[in-house]
Amino acid sequence: MKKYLTHHEWQIIEDGFHPEYNRISESVFSIGNGRMGQRANFEESYTGDTLQGSYVAGVYYPDKTRVGWWKNGYPEYFAKVLNACNWIGIDVKINKTVLDLAKSDVTDFKRVLDMQRGILQRQFTAKLQSGEQLRVDATRFCSLADDEAGVIRYAIQCDFSGELSLTPYLDFDIKNEDANYDEKFWEEVELAVRKGEGYITAATRKTDFHVCTGMCFDILVNNKNVTPDIEVFRKEKFISNTVKLQVNEGDEVVIYKYAVNLSSENHPKDSLSTHADKLLQNIRKKGFQNMLEEQAAAWAARWKDSDIVIEGDVAAQQGIRFNIFQLNQTYTGEDERLNIGPKGFTGEKYGGSTYWDTEAYCLPFYLSTAHERVARNLLIYRYKHLQKAIENAEKLGFKNGAALYPMVTMNGEECHNEWEITFEEIHRNGAIAYAIFDYIRYTDDKAYLADYGLEVLIGIARFWAQRVNYSNQKGKYVILGVTGPNEYENNVNNNWYTNFTAKKCLEFAMESIEWIKKNCPEKYKVIIRQINFDETEEQAQWQQICDHIYLPKYQEFGIYLQQEGFLDKDISPVSDLDKADRPLCQKWSWDRILRSCYIKQADVLQGLYFYEHEFDKETIRRNFDFYEPLTVHESSLSPCVHAILAARLGYHDKAYDMYLQTARLDLDDYNNDTEDGCHITSMAGTWMAVVKGFGGMRVVDGQLHLNPFLPKQWTSYSFKIRWRSNILNIKVTKDKTIVENESGAPISLVLAEKLTEIANEKVLAKS
Amino acid sequence: MKKYLTHHEWQIIEDGFHPEYNRISESVFSIGNGRMGQRANFEESYTGDTLQGSYVAGVYYPDKTRVGWWKNGYPEYFAKVLNACNWIGIDVKINKTVLDLAKSDVTDFKRVLDMQRGILQRQFTAKLQSGEQLRVDATRFCSLADDEAGVIRYAIQCDFSGELSLTPYLDFDIKNEDANYDEKFWEEVELAVRKGEGYITAATRKTDFHVCTGMCFDILVNNKNVTPDIEVFRKEKFISNTVKLQVNEGDEVVIYKYAVNLSSENHPKDSLSTHADKLLQNIRKKGFQNMLEEQAAAWAARWKDSDIVIEGDVAAQQGIRFNIFQLNQTYTGEDERLNIGPKGFTGEKYGGSTYWDTEAYCLPFYLSTAHERVARNLLIYRYKHLQKAIENAEKLGFKNGAALYPMVTMNGEECHNEWEITFEEIHRNGAIAYAIFDYIRYTDDKAYLADYGLEVLIGIARFWAQRVNYSNQKGKYVILGVTGPNEYENNVNNNWYTNFTAKKCLEFAMESIEWIKKNCPEKYKVIIRQINFDETEEQAQWQQICDHIYLPKYQEFGIYLQQEGFLDKDISPVSDLDKADRPLCQKWSWDRILRSCYIKQADVLQGLYFYEHEFDKETIRRNFDFYEPLTVHESSLSPCVHAILAARLGYHDKAYDMYLQTARLDLDDYNNDTEDGCHITSMAGTWMAVVKGFGGMRVVDGQLHLNPFLPKQWTSYSFKIRWRSNILNIKVTKDKTIVENESGAPISLVLAEKLTEIANEKVLAKS
Repeated sequence: MKKYLTHHEWQIIEDGFHPEYNRISESVFSIGNGRMGQRANFEESYTGDTLQGSYVAGVYYPDKTRVGWWKNGYPEYFAKVLNACNWIGIDVKINKTVLDLAKSDVTDFKRVLDMQRGILQRQFTAKLQSGEQLRVDATRFCSLADDEAGVIRYAIQCDFSGELSLTPYLDFDIKNEDANYDEKFWEEVELAVRKGEGYITAATRKTDFHVCTGMCFDILVNNKNVTPDIEVFRKEKFISNTVKLQVNEGDEVVIYKYAVNLSSENHPKDSLSTHADKLLQNIRKKGFQNMLEEQAAAWAARWKDSDIVIEGDVAAQQGIRFNIFQLNQTYTGEDERLNIGPKGFTGEKYGGSTYWDTEAYCLPFYLSTAHERVARNLLIYRYKHLQKAIENAEKLGFKNGAALYPMVTMNGEECHNEWEITFEEIHRNGAIAYAIFDYIRYTDDKAYLADYGLEVLIGIARFWAQRVNYSNQKGKYVILGVTGPNEYENNVNNNWYTNFTAKKCLEFAMESIEWIKKNCPEKYKVIIRQINFDETEEQAQWQQICDHIYLPKYQEFGIYLQQEGFLDKDISPVSDLDKADRPLCQKWSWDRILRSCYIKQADVLQGLYFYEHEFDKETIRRNFDFYEPLTVHESSLSPCVHAILAARLGYHDKAYDMYLQTARLDLDDYNNDTEDGCHITSMAGTWMAVVKGFGGMRVVDGQLHLNPFLPKQWTSYSFKIRWRSNILNIKVTKDKTIVENESGAPISLVLAEKLTEIANEKVLAKS
Repeated sequence: MKKYLTHHEWQIIEDGFHPEYNRISESVFSIGNGRMGQRANFEESYTGDTLQGSYVAGVYYPDKTRVGWWKNGYPEYFAKVLNACNWIGIDVKINKTVLDLAKSDVTDFKRVLDMQRGILQRQFTAKLQSGEQLRVDATRFCSLADDEAGVIRYAIQCDFSGELSLTPYLDFDIKNEDANYDEKFWEEVELAVRKGEGYITAATRKTDFHVCTGMCFDILVNNKNVTPDIEVFRKEKFISNTVKLQVNEGDEVVIYKYAVNLSSENHPKDSLSTHADKLLQNIRKKGFQNMLEEQAAAWAARWKDSDIVIEGDVAAQQGIRFNIFQLNQTYTGEDERLNIGPKGFTGEKYGGSTYWDTEAYCLPFYLSTAHERVARNLLIYRYKHLQKAIENAEKLGFKNGAALYPMVTMNGEECHNEWEITFEEIHRNGAIAYAIFDYIRYTDDKAYLADYGLEVLIGIARFWAQRVNYSNQKGKYVILGVTGPNEYENNVNNNWYTNFTAKKCLEFAMESIEWIKKNCPEKYKVIIRQINFDETEEQAQWQQICDHIYLPKYQEFGIYLQQEGFLDKDISPVSDLDKADRPLCQKWSWDRILRSCYIKQADVLQGLYFYEHEFDKETIRRNFDFYEPLTVHESSLSPCVHAILAARLGYHDKAYDMYLQTARLDLDDYNNDTEDGCHITSMAGTWMAVVKGFGGMRVVDGQLHLNPFLPKQWTSYSFKIRWRSNILNIKVTKDKTIVENESGAPISLVLAEKLTEIANEKVLAKS
């Protein structure tokens, strides 16, 4: 854990240069706009430790799978998010000495992520080894308004006289650190450079995505435009312009670098560079200042919908805003081909691909803070991958349109390769069905079922129907050889969460069929003909499974069993573990973890969270009281579920404690891994801990519920949610809860367990 | 399956050139002497498909582990058998054209492995693209008498006039095909070459084994020694001599190449080349013909002890002799630092390291066919690795001298890296204890216990005592998270074989303690002090575990359960499987295999085989009848166990069928993988199938039992066994069994269930 960042309500601040934490800062200070993203690398040369990262959404490389021992069924490749063209680079030279903070005396260094406006700023004074001194003030952002553009203002205050050389460049000759065979993934397609501007188009090997990155720039000396001599340079996958200026002490030189990143996902390949050129001219004409104002306005609109305000705890305020900021700059919901990688645009790790995190943890955030089309697009993403999910299931021996969604994917194909996860963590299929259920529950957009949902639900139901087998021994349907959400158990039999999920999927599929049959009979006929669905026979089988699936429980404790045989373990609470043994994933060998009773992340409790409406409070309590003490929360996705359930059970301190475990996960580098990138998907969990946990927000039978409490560490907090066509602003203070209805039209909701009608505002005093 | 090799009682014959099977032939025709081994690569250049392989026993390289996803506890490296210096090379050039069978018109090709004398012969006529024709007759062997030497006679019959150039060379600039990071593993230490001789000493990277390979040669033209001009050449890790001869049609040119391979395992590094030179001079002086005679004599002695003669079935005769031949040339038992790799000296695969195969399958062969010191050396190998096994267990969290022997090893350290095997296939510890039991049962050498055995048994017992945990639920000790011998199940709970094995280990350790306490009380005191053994407390705990260990069974069927929950599976016999689904390991995804009921190799039956004396015949029958139909035998180690049990149960056809599955495994390339090398360890299983299966050989309570039957496909068979100080020759014909006692001193044994005394010979007519 590191605590080098300054607490501030709206900003992330690195005050003073911390080269030892540079990779962490590069992750934390990342900027993006849903279409492109950029780690907080320096514009000028830097020979210190750094992970360079410029990412273009939707562009990936199928890196050849690397395993120790091949298992039949493994995919041939692992799709990886790609480090793309370095568009931020501006080399600075003073009298032949290159500006490099690793080799300079650096003072007054400050890096600021202005979350309110979506802007990264950096200031420093550097004294070069050769003696010259200069002060730099750099500002950059990825524009939300022009989401293929990034812009930089790089201002140099000269404390020397002599030659200042500036070299804005584009470098496409880059690598992924995370490359299985140390290959380069990009090949040059086209390249042009002239004085003042240039571009490079490169193509990914194998996938043949084309990306055109262009740049142009303006230079001002003491606030006046200059048109200096420019030296043009080009080599393979690299272009640059070098400008040499004679400066005097006290001069201010400012370079505005405009850059664009266009991908063949959004433009025809043959006109990529034309489009790039056009956009470049547009933004240059618009100018940095106007773009900055548009950026501030766009971010203000985001914050208006999604901000959470916490009073009385600056660290908590900064933490939650950082999480919301990252989520908003990772995924905007404009493009249903995109999704939310575990590291977003902040690093290469986990391939940047889609996991079940999206459906299980991220969806609620977008449902409550953005237009419903955003969440809908997340669902459509999976709908478009249905055929691939069917092929994936076929590869594993399933038939007749059974669909198994991949554990990790870019384009719908599985690209994970650990048998106990790839083949066995099949509960992910349940999360994908659950997301449809959750979306419809929240939005009431039942039409989605007929438009997209049903085919997915039938594919998933068919999978479960084939994946169970009937145990003569038990007289029940069983599901053998699975890994539940708790990855600290592998290849278990009858994981309660998985079995229960299978049942829910089958039931939901049948309910959906009923609804569509009744409400869209023509559409229904078309669909079932297309997918060759035998409604009588298949549904009869599904019903049979639902009625007789084995759901392991232990009557004596009144708990569901994580899996069959769980109680054969040596059961003792996490609190009895020696601190030196934590985290288990680093201290214990894998087999020891597996046979221990310790749980990585919510498993039975994940199910109780998803389907809370089907369980009474005492059942939840008994399971929480049994499992939480055994849970090590070594997944960043664990605490949020526990926070929500703890809040429900009135365990307020526990809820707050769980919330704390993720709120500042990256800002304080809790797990020593923020250098790889931020934990984007778990950030949505933090949001849930506040809104569903502290705020008690639920939707039950189409009815919104709120049941807030105030953590005693805070003075107040407020959050907004979009509830169908309304926007509600909920503020919770020590003595009251205020629900403001921004839309004006009266709505009814269940507030603190009482049905309430709210026209404009409702103030509920604390009992 | 391929059937291109000619059946012959004593020879393996490739008649006609089969370049498409060259890698297979290279494996099958491999030669070795326990100290060095050589695949059947060609002496002259060959640009066709080939896997070059020259191996020096005990020399390995710790190749950096390669995995997709690191699991805590994995070893840093995988020790690999090394391809070492190419010592066989003789380039042949005719008037500037290189002799290369891939580019010549080849006729009359014949490759013969003369198993009786341990000699590889090759003859062919080649017509070069340039038109010249020659006939080659090459003979080579790895000398048993001089086990660091190999020798070649390479005779050329010239059907042309012109220049014949011969270049004997040594090439140490070689690679392993199986290298994780495509690195070369050898570095040159020293190199010298002069006219007529030379040597190279190279060292392995990291491990710094030194190997000196030397060569010298003689050339005869038409039977007369010639001393031609020699061109000397050297480059890094390579030396050669080139001799150019003017020959006339009809001339015969013979080159004798003598080579030696000395390793720093057997000689001081600083005098390696001196020793090499000395040995080279010795064998050259001895000469090819004398060496050949010594070789024939040495092999005759081996055959005298270990031959199995089958009449009425040449293919079976060839198969069993091939297996015995390979076993004898892989391991001679002279050096307790060596062991038996799954591929012996015939390929690189599986790293050439030691698996539990040695104890479970190979030991009985050496016990019955060689002096007891050979088997004893195999045990001492593990004794010497005890400290490493303790460290290995510590790495996984065990304490107090608990020992877990590695799954795969060269020097005692674990080098396997698949968690479900490395960490979970812990039954291997049981095989190591069982081997001690088996050795003592066979030899009555109880002194071994005090000298070496006890420490190993206590280390293993301590492991089991820590590895079990008490299940409150069951009121029993359980063993969670294991993989049994059947690797088609992973991470299961309460695998019967593993649990039963644990119990047997604990009991055997306690019995051994009792014996030593009584018979070697002083030694006992020293040992327990050294290893800090608390005899009262530890033994009380062991007894407790033995009394209360959970041994899953299904009363209704009267069977032991392969593991808990086995009967929840969808159970249907292998015979119902579609042929297109076989072999499962190639056709089904891993998860499907895991949750199926299909068994890769004997698991419960492995336990019944090991501890047959503790189970009545009907128990064995019920388990055999239940499990065998579910077994796919996709491990070459499976059929032998089934053959032995089937024979015991009187299922003679089944026994023969199982025998057939391994007897010609490599000769007919059943599994399409002989190109990687031969299945050396399973060859011992084939021997067992005959001697323990058909011959019914057992040792029970110190008493030898024989209970032979004759497979109806054969006219007769006979085998020899060393039984303590006696050698018995057992011949089984249609109507009688003849037991010949070679030692003369009368011995008693149980023949066909009757206690019998045999002085010289006993003939038992078939009832």
